[in-house]
Amino acid sequence: MRTSITGATSLLRTMADAGIEVCFANPGTSEMHFVAALGSLPRIRPVLGLFEGAVSGMADGYARVTGKPALTLYHLGTGFTNAAANLHNARRAKSPIVNVVGDHATTHKRWDSPLKSDIEALARPMSDWLRMAQSTHTLSADAAAAVAAARAAPGQIATLILPADIAWGTTEGHAPPLPQPRAAPPDPAAVARVAAVLRERGRTAALIVRAAAGEARGVAAIERICAGTGARALHDLMAPRVLRGAGRFPITRVAYRAEDAVASLTGLTDVVHVGTMPPVAPFAYPQFPSWLTPEGVTPVWLAHDHEDEVRALEALADALAAPVVTARHATAATEAPRGRLDALAIGRSLARHLPEGAILSEEAISNGPPIAAGTAHAAPHWHMTNTGGALGQGIPLATGAAVAAPDRKVVNVQADGSGLFTLQALWTQARERLDVLTIVLANRSYAVLRFEIDRVGATVEESLAGTLLDIDKPDIDWVSLAKGLGVEAVRATTAEAFDDALAALMKRRGPALIEAVMEQP
Amino acid sequence: MRTSITGATSLLRTMADAGIEVCFANPGTSEMHFVAALGSLPRIRPVLGLFEGAVSGMADGYARVTGKPALTLYHLGTGFTNAAANLHNARRAKSPIVNVVGDHATTHKRWDSPLKSDIEALARPMSDWLRMAQSTHTLSADAAAAVAAARAAPGQIATLILPADIAWGTTEGHAPPLPQPRAAPPDPAAVARVAAVLRERGRTAALIVRAAAGEARGVAAIERICAGTGARALHDLMAPRVLRGAGRFPITRVAYRAEDAVASLTGLTDVVHVGTMPPVAPFAYPQFPSWLTPEGVTPVWLAHDHEDEVRALEALADALAAPVVTARHATAATEAPRGRLDALAIGRSLARHLPEGAILSEEAISNGPPIAAGTAHAAPHWHMTNTGGALGQGIPLATGAAVAAPDRKVVNVQADGSGLFTLQALWTQARERLDVLTIVLANRSYAVLRFEIDRVGATVEESLAGTLLDIDKPDIDWVSLAKGLGVEAVRATTAEAFDDALAALMKRRGPALIEAVMEQP
Repeated sequence: MRTSITGATSLLRTMADAGIEVCFANPGTSEMHFVAALGSLPRIRPVLGLFEGAVSGMADGYARVTGKPALTLYHLGTGFTNAAANLHNARRAKSPIVNVVGDHATTHKRWDSPLKSDIEALARPMSDWLRMAQSTHTLSADAAAAVAAARAAPGQIATLILPADIAWGTTEGHAPPLPQPRAAPPDPAAVARVAAVLRERGRTAALIVRAAAGEARGVAAIERICAGTGARALHDLMAPRVLRGAGRFPITRVAYRAEDAVASLTGLTDVVHVGTMPPVAPFAYPQFPSWLTPEGVTPVWLAHDHEDEVRALEALADALAAPVVTARHATAATEAPRGRLDALAIGRSLARHLPEGAILSEEAISNGPPIAAGTAHAAPHWHMTNTGGALGQGIPLATGAAVAAPDRKVVNVQADGSGLFTLQALWTQARERLDVLTIVLANRSYAVLRFEIDRVGATVEESLAGTLLDIDKPDIDWVSLAKGLGVEAVRATTAEAFDDALAALMKRRGPALIEAVMEQP
Repeated sequence: MRTSITGATSLLRTMADAGIEVCFANPGTSEMHFVAALGSLPRIRPVLGLFEGAVSGMADGYARVTGKPALTLYHLGTGFTNAAANLHNARRAKSPIVNVVGDHATTHKRWDSPLKSDIEALARPMSDWLRMAQSTHTLSADAAAAVAAARAAPGQIATLILPADIAWGTTEGHAPPLPQPRAAPPDPAAVARVAAVLRERGRTAALIVRAAAGEARGVAAIERICAGTGARALHDLMAPRVLRGAGRFPITRVAYRAEDAVASLTGLTDVVHVGTMPPVAPFAYPQFPSWLTPEGVTPVWLAHDHEDEVRALEALADALAAPVVTARHATAATEAPRGRLDALAIGRSLARHLPEGAILSEEAISNGPPIAAGTAHAAPHWHMTNTGGALGQGIPLATGAAVAAPDRKVVNVQADGSGLFTLQALWTQARERLDVLTIVLANRSYAVLRFEIDRVGATVEESLAGTLLDIDKPDIDWVSLAKGLGVEAVRATTAEAFDDALAALMKRRGPALIEAVMEQP
């Protein structure tokens, strides 16, 4: 007996069979059959975002914590473009994500109706894999291919465009998933080559790693290699997550500022890349180079990004006969900060109160380095930050992380300027009762731009800088914004008040926000 | 004597000479020289938006009110994609807009730095004109070409991508503007053809106009034609603005719902297009056609969209020897609404309190038709609505309109779901002290989707519909959101309270918001 199902149902059944568990969505008219199909498939949990940039950032957070792709749903080309900035960030993090973008019915596409746009053109630059569904009968095979593409090492953005009539048409059955792609195994020649370099010049060499900094096995192997050879360990700006905190082997981030990065690499004879590209400056500056590797150093690769970083590092540690390190790194109690509320004080408070196993979503922008310094000695935690430079990644990332890890505290240290790009994700925290504590660093300016003006050699009159670089007049009231989106919030203006609020809110479950009103330096 | 200026300064001097008066901006590091150049040029007013989707929507509002292009400034590809949804809406309205998108320095573009993306690919689908600046010395000529492209009839989106080193390089002098493009004059053959049709079958004919519905001369000519021939006048969904209100000749919008549009066109023998395309359904539905012109009717054109609609209508009225209509249409006082607060009550309150000359920015979505019915008899005003279907157009549109017309009251009737996409524009209203009253229709659901489910033939389980189609649990608190962004707000839950609040706030200047908590039908 035949039992017809809609194309949308066949797609979702294949995705569920392929391991998709959550769909972050902001649907519209052309996606109603997809929405209907979701309702008949309890294996995929729907999570609503009130803006597509929140939706895509949540998918990134989910993917970074679980390593698994989330499904997202957007309405037409303009829904996709709203999601694009955080998809850009996710793509830099190499997070696996499967986007479904609803499109007009194929019979309707010849008409220039109001919402018509060239979805393929808009989606291509942000997608590693892109397909326009052709037929209801092959839609579930498209779904299988999309999930496999998202999972291809090291992780990709896969976008499937779904015309409405292909979703609402009926078919029989659904395709099985593809086998899960695997990263390439370590290359013995690369392992031998790097081992020889490190044996000879380990004390003037550095490893620059990516995903391995976020895996316990990866960090253990890095620690063995560094202990055995004297090499330093760095991770690049686009590492999806990093294991940090007291007792853990420290892996330093390549500095954001070109001059700091150059200074930290000066004197090296060898740079070993593990799933990374040689560091380049985020922006061009008239007075700094873009290429940051010291002159005369030829970078070598232990693993490229399609290879298994962790296994390559383990193979290298074994080749070096580096012993397993068992001694833990010293931890020191941090005293409560007093007085002025600045990033150092906030970092110290976090060091005191961040619970073990927390996930720290940090989009602190100009305050990133002091926050990172402070939290380096907090209880062991995961650190995830903005990988692509597009603003508005922190709140959604924390939201998706909390969906992925309901039993872990998620703390989002959030610059105020960038937080405003995707504040809508706070509402999803409230609706899903997620355990996220947001700390807004309210310096009331695009402080990073005030800092960048000099470095690019520009001079901006103070009155105009005030107009375009400060976000005061009026001040943003984050306590009210959070309340408006259903999240409880408090304001702190001194280090003592902040420390008290943080201590109290870390002990509670559920979404909350602290507006940390910071003095300007 | 030579006086070197930066490329950015040369660009802005040419733009100012070409008539650009406002720059709506959200800058980043790569635009710092542009920002510096703005400071030395008081002829262009900078207006900051806290999210690029707010910036582009403001430019649309400014362009619709003034007919002149605004300049916008975005940071790299992800800044542009954040702006894209409201650029899509602006493009549908054929609003003239000049976008400048900062890019990495040409020397830096070979590197895959974190914010690198394919800006040309992202911008092309949303731009009628697109150019990547090649040299500091030709940048001001690019600026002249961009402004002329934006002004080409009927109005275009022009995007100039500006690498940082081309902005910071120095040059001598700047290019003069291009002559202002003009729409093509009326085509005598088309005028004669349409006059013959209307003389013979005027009583079963309709005009479908676009920009002329927003020009006093256009409306006067339409009224003469209709009075002289018995023809009906409609305007299409994408008309940028419409002159409406008591005493004015009514020009009806082509209905959004396909079945309503079909019903309203049934029985016509002739459809005359004036700057419009034949109406098509916004979405495909299994049971409705996409093409809405009645079977057997061959549409004719009085003017295509590159021709001057108003002069063509005047030529037609003259050809028909249609007398000038001087009788004003009846107006009736509207009684205060009582009890239940729904869209009809809000429409009636608006009819009572909207001041003459107001600009009504309406993104009411599912409540659009009753609001439009109510305000049809308000004091004469301009009505501007969502032209492209991408959500989040109302708040920024009202903001840009108020920048353009500081002496007129701007009222934004705003659905809650769509308002959340670009609520950041409220802050710009506060900073610039703009005279905008926002009325949020808080029905706490994507009501249009609940309505569309049946029409696309889908069935959604109520629990899932609640998850993905309702935006309650928790309710959005718009009073707090407005306060958070510096805008005073009140909540009304009955028709009486709403009418009182509206009366009071219409008399005050400056930004304010009413959250109208609506009962569900």
